[in-house]
Amino acid sequence: MNHGTTLLWKRRALSSLSATRRGLPKPKMSENGVVPRAKVLTIDTMNPTVKNVEYAVRGPIVARAVELEKELSEGMKKPFAEVIKANIGDAHAMGQQPITFFRQVLALCSYPELLNDSTFPEDAKSRARRILQSCGGNSMGSYSASQGIDSVRQDVARYIERRDGGVPCDPDDIYLTTGASDGIMTMLKLLVCGEGVTRTGVMISIPQYPLYSAALAELGAVQINYYLNEEKCWSLDISELQRALDEARHHCNPRALCIINPGNPTGQVQSRECIEDVIRFAAKEGLFLMADEVYQDNVYADGCQFHSFKKVLFEMGPEYSDTVELASFHSTSKCYMGECGFRGGYMEIINMDDEVKAQLTKLVSVRLCPPVPGQALMDLVVNPPQPGEPSYDNFIKERTATLSALAEKAKLTEQILNTVHGISCNPVQGAMYSFPRIIIPEKAVKEATDKGQQPDMFYCMKMLEETGICLVPGSGFGQKDGTYHFRMTILPPRDKLQILLNKVKEFHQKFTKHYS
Amino acid sequence: MNHGTTLLWKRRALSSLSATRRGLPKPKMSENGVVPRAKVLTIDTMNPTVKNVEYAVRGPIVARAVELEKELSEGMKKPFAEVIKANIGDAHAMGQQPITFFRQVLALCSYPELLNDSTFPEDAKSRARRILQSCGGNSMGSYSASQGIDSVRQDVARYIERRDGGVPCDPDDIYLTTGASDGIMTMLKLLVCGEGVTRTGVMISIPQYPLYSAALAELGAVQINYYLNEEKCWSLDISELQRALDEARHHCNPRALCIINPGNPTGQVQSRECIEDVIRFAAKEGLFLMADEVYQDNVYADGCQFHSFKKVLFEMGPEYSDTVELASFHSTSKCYMGECGFRGGYMEIINMDDEVKAQLTKLVSVRLCPPVPGQALMDLVVNPPQPGEPSYDNFIKERTATLSALAEKAKLTEQILNTVHGISCNPVQGAMYSFPRIIIPEKAVKEATDKGQQPDMFYCMKMLEETGICLVPGSGFGQKDGTYHFRMTILPPRDKLQILLNKVKEFHQKFTKHYS
Repeated sequence: MNHGTTLLWKRRALSSLSATRRGLPKPKMSENGVVPRAKVLTIDTMNPTVKNVEYAVRGPIVARAVELEKELSEGMKKPFAEVIKANIGDAHAMGQQPITFFRQVLALCSYPELLNDSTFPEDAKSRARRILQSCGGNSMGSYSASQGIDSVRQDVARYIERRDGGVPCDPDDIYLTTGASDGIMTMLKLLVCGEGVTRTGVMISIPQYPLYSAALAELGAVQINYYLNEEKCWSLDISELQRALDEARHHCNPRALCIINPGNPTGQVQSRECIEDVIRFAAKEGLFLMADEVYQDNVYADGCQFHSFKKVLFEMGPEYSDTVELASFHSTSKCYMGECGFRGGYMEIINMDDEVKAQLTKLVSVRLCPPVPGQALMDLVVNPPQPGEPSYDNFIKERTATLSALAEKAKLTEQILNTVHGISCNPVQGAMYSFPRIIIPEKAVKEATDKGQQPDMFYCMKMLEETGICLVPGSGFGQKDGTYHFRMTILPPRDKLQILLNKVKEFHQKFTKHYS
Repeated sequence: MNHGTTLLWKRRALSSLSATRRGLPKPKMSENGVVPRAKVLTIDTMNPTVKNVEYAVRGPIVARAVELEKELSEGMKKPFAEVIKANIGDAHAMGQQPITFFRQVLALCSYPELLNDSTFPEDAKSRARRILQSCGGNSMGSYSASQGIDSVRQDVARYIERRDGGVPCDPDDIYLTTGASDGIMTMLKLLVCGEGVTRTGVMISIPQYPLYSAALAELGAVQINYYLNEEKCWSLDISELQRALDEARHHCNPRALCIINPGNPTGQVQSRECIEDVIRFAAKEGLFLMADEVYQDNVYADGCQFHSFKKVLFEMGPEYSDTVELASFHSTSKCYMGECGFRGGYMEIINMDDEVKAQLTKLVSVRLCPPVPGQALMDLVVNPPQPGEPSYDNFIKERTATLSALAEKAKLTEQILNTVHGISCNPVQGAMYSFPRIIIPEKAVKEATDKGQQPDMFYCMKMLEETGICLVPGSGFGQKDGTYHFRMTILPPRDKLQILLNKVKEFHQKFTKHYS
């Protein structure tokens, strides 16, 4: 090809690209007089279930935050010096440091030449050797078994047994996943069937983590909302579960009940008693239980403790433990690790029908395997340094520092927010978020409604433009009609968080004054 | 909880587990006299589209291979010393070594402390720094943008421009993915709509890579088969495309055409002329083009050359380049890298409607982001060491060694297989597989049919049991009625491959004799 032709393409293509970027409609006729064909794939002819998907955590407000960052970097003047993304539980992006031992092992697995490097501790080397020995050709570049590396699944099973005080766990019931999202999506996919009033319904908490609503929309399943009790610290009332279920039975076939504990976005930690009640309810009503337990180490409030659904189920005796179908989910992304980018996770499947389990194994095989570095990291999370090993002390030090800082920030968040007239915030008992209720003045509600915006989206957008703070409006998670909230992570470093909370306070006061 | 209770659980749970493992039905009543409830999720009440999914590359034959490995390790006597998995393109598992530079950069990114280690080359360090600077908090543990890290998408765009002789590429058209499978699945998901005769149909080659049939089954789309011409080295005839399309229009709405080039499982490399014909056909018939180009560096045969669909499209002028919708896919898993475990990949989207593109961006955001180590690796593949950089010579040496060895093994495979009476093998022009035709004696066909097995599954199972060689029967990929094939990778080391091919030869002769 000659150089002249190349340039011609470049010019033509770039002019067409920039037209698209500027949001201009493409010309009906190109410069060569060619009338373009109609598109095969348009908004009217694409998959309608995909159109129904919404995902607020990365929605328009985050898109605007990214634009603002770009504008700032281009020197544009703003009333703030930086954009602070408190919209997503992305710990390392907020400055949390990775656990040294985990990263040492990952480096060793990536470049095994380092096994000869005397600066790496022996326990890191022995973990790396064990992981590599479980990989085809001793390389993380090989596919693993679709269900996940055998030795990792064994380590996960032993971790669960330790966590649950000896309740047995079979490695065959463990499926490694690409983050918890992947496992949740896969389980929901198995559950969906029927049409019309026989269509599968799935109960989810409101407020919820929007992966659930997005997955259900994509699968065309019926979303059944049960509301958490904000007045009682976002607790779960069985009577509300019953109400939601009874109503839903008129128009769909409810088959599954999803619980997030500790709660996202609401930060509550369920009591043991509540979990027992939920299990009894699921058993009585014939519901498949899905327990999202990715924040299992993130418990801060005095008197609160994490109880796994698996443990409680087994302690309730065989009437429940032999029958109730349960899938529980964990991940490398949260807790003290915060390793979101590696997309590691697992699910444990209890009492699943053997034929269905075979179908699950087949289904995951189509995607070949979860990312092996994420599997390796999951292995380290469930099999960290042990007392007596060279890395133990430092591991404990790092883990404790991160969890204590989070506990402190959880308290700080609640305290400062509750000093603001018009904001009320439940204690952040666990997880990584506060979900305060905000009072939005009537005038602001009207202005938002006139603009076709949710009032809390309007509020959060204003906050972003004026302060650079990126939050997610409560409407993205669901909330009782007429109430408004936002979700804010507790992840920024303490000093920054304090500044941020005071900016929120200032903004809220200004906003309220302006619209009163 | 007291120790006695724990032991009781253990005993009860383990006894129930082992019953399941032995394939025994669970007792109707547990030892405590509890009558178990009916399962919520059974084979009859699960998602019917999942049941329709089939994926031969990891099907029953591989399950048996894993069992055999276990039996061998337990000391059971077999007519072979090891199981050789020639069923899947898993290069590192077959002994191929990773590219040193890639693994050095990944180690540096995993454990940035190593940036102070003087034994790492400077170009590896500068690549690692650039990747880390694009990560939130300079950590691979942060989520990336859902579409992928900006700087990686820019590097991918520049790689495509170089590869395609200057045809421009916009980083906004690049989506990083979790391996190519994820991208293909996502694109198909966008395309599926309608019911009955308006249901979306997707044209796929037969033989095909079974990800396609599996994805279409899961999405409930209509699979439209077009047959490759085995007599002409698995080439693609436009008249066959036309036949398949015309027939399909009676019962569905054909909207997309999938091409795998270089071919999997068939190993052909498409001529430029053929690609032009396909593009003209897609334009004329209003089909969305999907080009699976993950083997783009795996071209071995004299006179064959890889032409990307993107480049050919743009060289055909604006009548095509301004209108034909194309998605093309690449991955870190094949070529000279063979890094399957990292699940890295990208897709490029050409001429996609802007509203649909926004929907695509939203859809991928629900899964948060592709694994960051896979994104980092993809970056290295598209931006490897350059002339003058310290790692350049070694990188070229390693890449050339791997690709030359593959070329040699492609030839060896064809040569040896074609010496066997009853096996005929087309030249392995590219990719990583041979897909020879095998003659199965009538008596064997009958015995298989009586067993309810495909004759080539019967053949491959026998081969596995007698020789330890694990292949995939042609029926897993699709083939013309009455013809039989198997897929075998060319990945084992040369010496081992030669032994393996001779064992196949021996087995085929014995099998043919036995059933004649």
